[in-house]
Amino acid sequence: MKQLLLIGIGPGDPRQVTYEAVEAMQRATVFFVLDKGAAKNELLQLRKTILARYVPQGDYRLIQVQDPQRDADAPDYAGAVNAWHQQRAALYARLLEQELAPGDIGAFLLWGEPALYDSTLRILDRVHAGGVALALKVIPGISSVQALAARHQVPLNRIGEPLTILPARRLAELESVDNVVVMLDGHCAFAALDDPGLHIYWGAYIGSADEVLISGPLQAVKAHIVQVREQLQQRNGWIMDTYLLRRGV
Amino acid sequence: MKQLLLIGIGPGDPRQVTYEAVEAMQRATVFFVLDKGAAKNELLQLRKTILARYVPQGDYRLIQVQDPQRDADAPDYAGAVNAWHQQRAALYARLLEQELAPGDIGAFLLWGEPALYDSTLRILDRVHAGGVALALKVIPGISSVQALAARHQVPLNRIGEPLTILPARRLAELESVDNVVVMLDGHCAFAALDDPGLHIYWGAYIGSADEVLISGPLQAVKAHIVQVREQLQQRNGWIMDTYLLRRGV
Ligand SMILES: C[S@@+](CC[C@H](N)C(=O)[O-])C[C@H]1O[C@@H](n2cnc3c(N)ncnc32)[C@H](O)[C@@H]1O
Ligand SMILES: C[S@@+](CC[C@H](N)C(=O)[O-])C[C@H]1O[C@@H](n2cnc3c(N)ncnc32)[C@H](O)[C@@H]1O
Repeated sequence: MKQLLLIGIGPGDPRQVTYEAVEAMQRATVFFVLDKGAAKNELLQLRKTILARYVPQGDYRLIQVQDPQRDADAPDYAGAVNAWHQQRAALYARLLEQELAPGDIGAFLLWGEPALYDSTLRILDRVHAGGVALALKVIPGISSVQALAARHQVPLNRIGEPLTILPARRLAELESVDNVVVMLDGHCAFAALDDPGLHIYWGAYIGSADEVLISGPLQAVKAHIVQVREQLQQRNGWIMDTYLLRRGV
Repeated sequence: MKQLLLIGIGPGDPRQVTYEAVEAMQRATVFFVLDKGAAKNELLQLRKTILARYVPQGDYRLIQVQDPQRDADAPDYAGAVNAWHQQRAALYARLLEQELAPGDIGAFLLWGEPALYDSTLRILDRVHAGGVALALKVIPGISSVQALAARHQVPLNRIGEPLTILPARRLAELESVDNVVVMLDGHCAFAALDDPGLHIYWGAYIGSADEVLISGPLQAVKAHIVQVREQLQQRNGWIMDTYLLRRGV
């Protein structure tokens, strides 16, 4: 039975980590880091900073793995993600076999909240289904959505009303946008919305020293956000941003 | 200018508090506790436990306030909530004037995540609009929704798909339920759903010693949840529960 901790570490500010997460880090003996894309080095660095702060004795092994790339241009999105998860499951199974000796406790340091647009749990379920006995524990973390709301000092929901959180590729499908948080937006999907009744609360690199926040009526500020986002991405080589769209503020 | 901290303290487990929240607690000089309803004493007790653990020096004042009751039977929900918020704004304004001397830092310890179905920020916005100068800081906390997902070891979203979070009174309005987290459910709204394709992940008192988790196909387990919930509520005098409804697990 392999013991594994899935630890949410918040959206970038090392103080936005819970005591439960730190206890878990201190129990773990092996950390797996699987990042990809342009932000890879920054994200790895932040995890190292968090470990240095909270596990200063350094009595663990840190294992960096090159994550397989997903075919981003595949026309069949679900199919491509599925194939990619299958590859990752095979990789994780191999890693766990090789790197976790009896008595070891493995850990994944997961960005933000582990249950929100993160595939690690799903992939480990496949590993488990594939015959590797796993004992998992999931430790919640502050999501970028919560950090966005806190920095803008805005509630996520209006009184008695729903909140929807979705990936940018699903935004265009909505009949009308009322109160929606958008994540995973590589292409400024908000800029395509013409609705004059919408307000946007936008944030990039939230929780880090590079944090940028912009808010206002969508039609009045969207061109500005597109421009700022472009500049930040060029300067830093990568960007992570999220936003809340709300009708009638 | 009155300084105020709105501190998210997580859903009940004192370890599910962030370092940022603890730093804020240590800076605060006056804590306001405004609870209501059957869980009032338990919630107050939990806040005292958290303060005793994280601010052991005890160099603060704790101010308990009887929160005005909302008219729960009013036919006009939004109107009743509005009137209630207006009353609370007047009460908070008075409190802040009376209790915060120059140099004091006030704090509210808010259950779970301050931006999720909590009216404190909205009420303080009214106080501010009413002429009391406030400098606010919001500190995110782990929401009960995240704790639910972690305890059931289930992602909140399916790959590339939306998540909706809503209060129970909005559940019946949905044309179809696909992936929805329900909060504030006093009457087991899930029991009225006949859809055979739904799965439920339910949890009560999540994060506390009384935690109870049940999951399964909705039609197979709903009567059991209704019964367990009834028993728990009778035994403890109050209950807090939340659940994820998902199609086709
Ligand atoms: C793969 S998802 C992971 C989300 C993460 N589990 C969470 O709870 O925030 C990555 C997306 O999260 C958002 N995100 C994560 N960290 C962020 C940050 N510090 N600032 C702004 N957005 C962020 C962006 O929308 C990004 O595209
Ligand atoms: C007024 S809302 C506050 C929500 C809170 N801000 C949060 O982030 O969890 C209260 C609702 O939250 C949910 N809730 C809060 N704490 C809970 C817990 N420990 N276990 C289960 N549900 C909880 C219940 O649905 C309850 O009706």
